[in-house]
Amino acid sequence: MSDLPNSVEFHEEGPREGFQIEKCVYPLEQRAALIDALSATGLKQIQVASFVNQKMVPQMADAEQLFAAIKRRAGVRYTGLWLNKTGFQRAANTPGVDLDGKIMFYTTDAFSQHNNGCSAAEMRDKQAEWVQIYDQHHIPLEQAYIMTAWGCNFQGDVPLSAITDTVKFIIKLCRDNNKPLPNIYLADTVGWATPEKVKQRLGAVRDLVPEARLGLHLHDTRGAGAANVYAALQMGVQLFDSSVAGLGGCPFANHSDSMAAGNVCTEDMVFMCEEMGIATGIDLDALIQASRLAEKIIGRKLNGRVMHGGSLSKYRKNN
Amino acid sequence: MSDLPNSVEFHEEGPREGFQIEKCVYPLEQRAALIDALSATGLKQIQVASFVNQKMVPQMADAEQLFAAIKRRAGVRYTGLWLNKTGFQRAANTPGVDLDGKIMFYTTDAFSQHNNGCSAAEMRDKQAEWVQIYDQHHIPLEQAYIMTAWGCNFQGDVPLSAITDTVKFIIKLCRDNNKPLPNIYLADTVGWATPEKVKQRLGAVRDLVPEARLGLHLHDTRGAGAANVYAALQMGVQLFDSSVAGLGGCPFANHSDSMAAGNVCTEDMVFMCEEMGIATGIDLDALIQASRLAEKIIGRKLNGRVMHGGSLSKYRKNN
Repeated sequence: MSDLPNSVEFHEEGPREGFQIEKCVYPLEQRAALIDALSATGLKQIQVASFVNQKMVPQMADAEQLFAAIKRRAGVRYTGLWLNKTGFQRAANTPGVDLDGKIMFYTTDAFSQHNNGCSAAEMRDKQAEWVQIYDQHHIPLEQAYIMTAWGCNFQGDVPLSAITDTVKFIIKLCRDNNKPLPNIYLADTVGWATPEKVKQRLGAVRDLVPEARLGLHLHDTRGAGAANVYAALQMGVQLFDSSVAGLGGCPFANHSDSMAAGNVCTEDMVFMCEEMGIATGIDLDALIQASRLAEKIIGRKLNGRVMHGGSLSKYRKNN
Repeated sequence: MSDLPNSVEFHEEGPREGFQIEKCVYPLEQRAALIDALSATGLKQIQVASFVNQKMVPQMADAEQLFAAIKRRAGVRYTGLWLNKTGFQRAANTPGVDLDGKIMFYTTDAFSQHNNGCSAAEMRDKQAEWVQIYDQHHIPLEQAYIMTAWGCNFQGDVPLSAITDTVKFIIKLCRDNNKPLPNIYLADTVGWATPEKVKQRLGAVRDLVPEARLGLHLHDTRGAGAANVYAALQMGVQLFDSSVAGLGGCPFANHSDSMAAGNVCTEDMVFMCEEMGIATGIDLDALIQASRLAEKIIGRKLNGRVMHGGSLSKYRKNN
């Protein structure tokens, strides 16, 4: 029927992105229960927590205990996030963390300064050090993220050249260190992407690294998330970060009684893919149950659609 | 950059679809204020109210008064909905209603019985009568809607032949009455559509009526709405029904404390189109203001994304 891929892989980010952004700290057993529910859906990778400064992010202070509390399921990878060596050391010392070597790049100085306290160029140079660290720990270099790959709230539209320059840097970095290319992710960190620009950027990256696996980390801040996923599928992308129930988002200064939407919603995208004949390996109805558990834990209506509309399975069963 | 259309037209359905579904009846002056706010955004067509049985739909009992209350703006069409002759007569007698001749078709008997108390075939035959009625009133036949064009909650997946058979009936109906073909809308009444099936059905209809203008009436029940719009744009569709703030939706039996999502959200789709260089004629920031007014009136967080995330204009202005 089309040239879309036969299968895709969703990496679940909800437990980390979702709970990190909330004002209150949710009980550990509730977060563990959600991760256990997610483990039973067919998801292959779940980001459990971040190992970051507990003073800055008290919601994630118990990352070690959370990893200890979850029931690990065979075939599922349980990953963590770190932003500096202290965080990485904590993750490496925590039993049950599936360590994935990742490097991160920024396309604008302002966003990089805001998140890392250094320029985008300085941040680039630091990534060479991470390649060494992963090497010393025998962790394969798996992922390279390019943040704000479409636009940045500090500096506006990001030129395509900022992406291609970063990819060229990654190519050189891997060559210098005698490493194969990692999966290259374009991240729409603050929701500037729209479908044609998704295609444009993916096309430009693929031209440079036809052998690399490309992935997308999308936020649905402005409602184009599903269309961006569809555009990426049309470009053959098979790797997406997403959040159960659309967890994530951020409190928005301009409209402060509300929350901007978070990551693209895992179960909505699973529904869309499966309906188009693209295998996800995920049991949609089980995932909807997990998303409703997330909503119960968070305590307000979440952004996912199919969790409220329901899947089509019961309508089809009757016919 | 692509083969997408240069421009699209969004017909605003929020004031009718949105308020009709709510449990409470909102004050007339609030609904009039929302319509006036929408009138100032560049929208060319706004469905104001339905002329239906007030016992069944008390939210729309004051349709005549609402039309009297709004401040008509030159260049904007203010339409109404009717389902029978009594309703049409009310609309025809109401000053300020821009009467658009529309006929409606159902793809399954169960849905037609539920909505109209007759089979899909009987409903078809009734449409011939409507063509006569519009003729007598000198109202051009503008729109033919094919409801549940992808799936139906009573009968499941709708076969493509149900659509093509209906289109063939419309062709014959127009020929027999010596009328040009109306715009043909496929309606995803209960949210079963996904992008590849959108393309498949649009393609099949276009094969039959290459000269007709095609439109879509989409609901975002399961989160594929934006992707469905993008798929339709790729097929050259330039006509969409949509709702400010994603108004509409329906209380869902399976998950009764919540509401399933409504129509695709006008301002989210305006954002997406404008970012892809497709002119909408709509001032996005003004429309976001109208969507926030809708949220204030309804009194709970609505489904639109860009209304919460904000447009990109202020970020670009600073750079």
